[in-house]
Amino acid sequence: MRMAKIISGHAISESMRAELAADAASFHAATGSSPCLAVVLVGEDAASQVYVRMKGKAAEKAGYASRTIVLAQTTPEDELLGVVDGLNADPDVHGILVQLPVPKHIDTQKVLRSIDPAKDVDGFHPMNAGALASGDLTVLAPCTPAGIIEMLMRSGYDPKGRHVVVVGRSTIVGRPVALLLLRDTPGGNATVTVAHSRSTDLAAITRQADILIAAIGRPAMTTRDMVKPGVVVIDVGVNRVEDAESERGYRLVGDVDYDDVAEVAEAISPVPGGVGPMTITMLLANTLEAAKRQHAMRPASSSRAGRAVSAAGG
Amino acid sequence: MRMAKIISGHAISESMRAELAADAASFHAATGSSPCLAVVLVGEDAASQVYVRMKGKAAEKAGYASRTIVLAQTTPEDELLGVVDGLNADPDVHGILVQLPVPKHIDTQKVLRSIDPAKDVDGFHPMNAGALASGDLTVLAPCTPAGIIEMLMRSGYDPKGRHVVVVGRSTIVGRPVALLLLRDTPGGNATVTVAHSRSTDLAAITRQADILIAAIGRPAMTTRDMVKPGVVVIDVGVNRVEDAESERGYRLVGDVDYDDVAEVAEAISPVPGGVGPMTITMLLANTLEAAKRQHAMRPASSSRAGRAVSAAGG
Repeated sequence: MRMAKIISGHAISESMRAELAADAASFHAATGSSPCLAVVLVGEDAASQVYVRMKGKAAEKAGYASRTIVLAQTTPEDELLGVVDGLNADPDVHGILVQLPVPKHIDTQKVLRSIDPAKDVDGFHPMNAGALASGDLTVLAPCTPAGIIEMLMRSGYDPKGRHVVVVGRSTIVGRPVALLLLRDTPGGNATVTVAHSRSTDLAAITRQADILIAAIGRPAMTTRDMVKPGVVVIDVGVNRVEDAESERGYRLVGDVDYDDVAEVAEAISPVPGGVGPMTITMLLANTLEAAKRQHAMRPASSSRAGRAVSAAGG
Repeated sequence: MRMAKIISGHAISESMRAELAADAASFHAATGSSPCLAVVLVGEDAASQVYVRMKGKAAEKAGYASRTIVLAQTTPEDELLGVVDGLNADPDVHGILVQLPVPKHIDTQKVLRSIDPAKDVDGFHPMNAGALASGDLTVLAPCTPAGIIEMLMRSGYDPKGRHVVVVGRSTIVGRPVALLLLRDTPGGNATVTVAHSRSTDLAAITRQADILIAAIGRPAMTTRDMVKPGVVVIDVGVNRVEDAESERGYRLVGDVDYDDVAEVAEAISPVPGGVGPMTITMLLANTLEAAKRQHAMRPASSSRAGRAVSAAGG
């Protein structure tokens, strides 16, 4: 029986991170400084702690500078905003990420708005969301949607002119990936449909997809009868389902019934090992891009001095 | 032969403007001030002069205060930004619109960013575009897309759960109307497809539409074979085609071949008299909404004083 090609976010991430590490080394050689990512964590949420640690480790492994600022669960909003202000003003910090969710006494939107848009490597600042909605080709795009585009392009599935159906309309994945797919640039120029929980006859919609992006958060809901043969599937779902045989008592499954759909699809991304690793990879890519732009913007004298020093050192 | 119901933007605008005039009168009674729209025109473009005059007249007819600031074609960017700053700071001005296009020596994005987002009644500020992209239900939405939603809702064609195909991905119409249609609110909750000039087999896509929004700017390109019987059509196109029999030497046609499609559609908006009048109507609606919010934000004392004066006067 023929099975779909696997779109491995894990493998694509590995080669992208090697490219980024080489690029970060060149940046250091040219400027005397390393791209620097600052991650702020408020509180002790176990999952958030894991994510923050993964981000810091990935940055360091790629030769970036990394800072992690951990604040107590009870930190007042003003104090968090003060920390962000300090990072905004620090020329050695190129990217800032406040790990979400923040504790309930803190206004998430206020925090996101407080980050300098030029350092907003998560792409969640309203100015960046607006630039993305306007088709801006230079914006720091949110990491998960940008990772989906990279997965398609690096697997040979250019969305240009094809019908991409996005299932899910979240502000973190569904809407921004639709906007990326509509841009007039490589990775864009798709015909894009966004469907969601209120869509009538969802299967009739998903069956039209040349490329299907499943991002609605329902375990294994997409089955073989909901796709057309030869479809390319990116599964963004990360759902915990009980599993007595697993040590942890659960396992992770995507929004797609993998075994069922893999028998008819042309290609499919797995969960885990699909979109997950790409999100951190795109965070590193955004941080390097932000670092390059911030150096290009500096007064010519200091930037030249940096280069002269590094040339002398090399 | 049965013909489609006509969705008259002209008629809907008339009743909406009467509602807005009544609402503006109540606002005046409660606060002692009228909603005020300031329109800034740079240069002498003939079409822009007509639009600016129409906006001012519509505002005055609805009982709004209206200001028109006309600046010379050669006005330096800084001077225009200074005018906008003055309007931003003026508590009597609730809505600000800079008529586009501005002369080439002026950076359009810089001008749009200079307008206080709370007074951005055109909905073009990146903060407002970002809020719209994030599904924000309180944002001042761009006027033409918001007008399209009103036309559908007031004609009894709720997009909820239906498949809406938008042809065209402009930042002024296609993308924002798609984002409005995706919101989880009345007028939203549609399944939305955005197609465009790069879409493969456009007719196969448009034939799936329960509601078709044509906004690509090609005269009469949508024909009967591109729609399914019973479709509801909103025609956003405004194209000039030569017409020797017309006094002006041209006539306006939409993106839809009206006579052809009207024979199979359930309902269709004409050009002219369709979306056109709705754009100015929504500008008035945004200005009133902005005025209400700005008054609600003022210190309680001054707002109460306004109400007391009006109560005494009435």
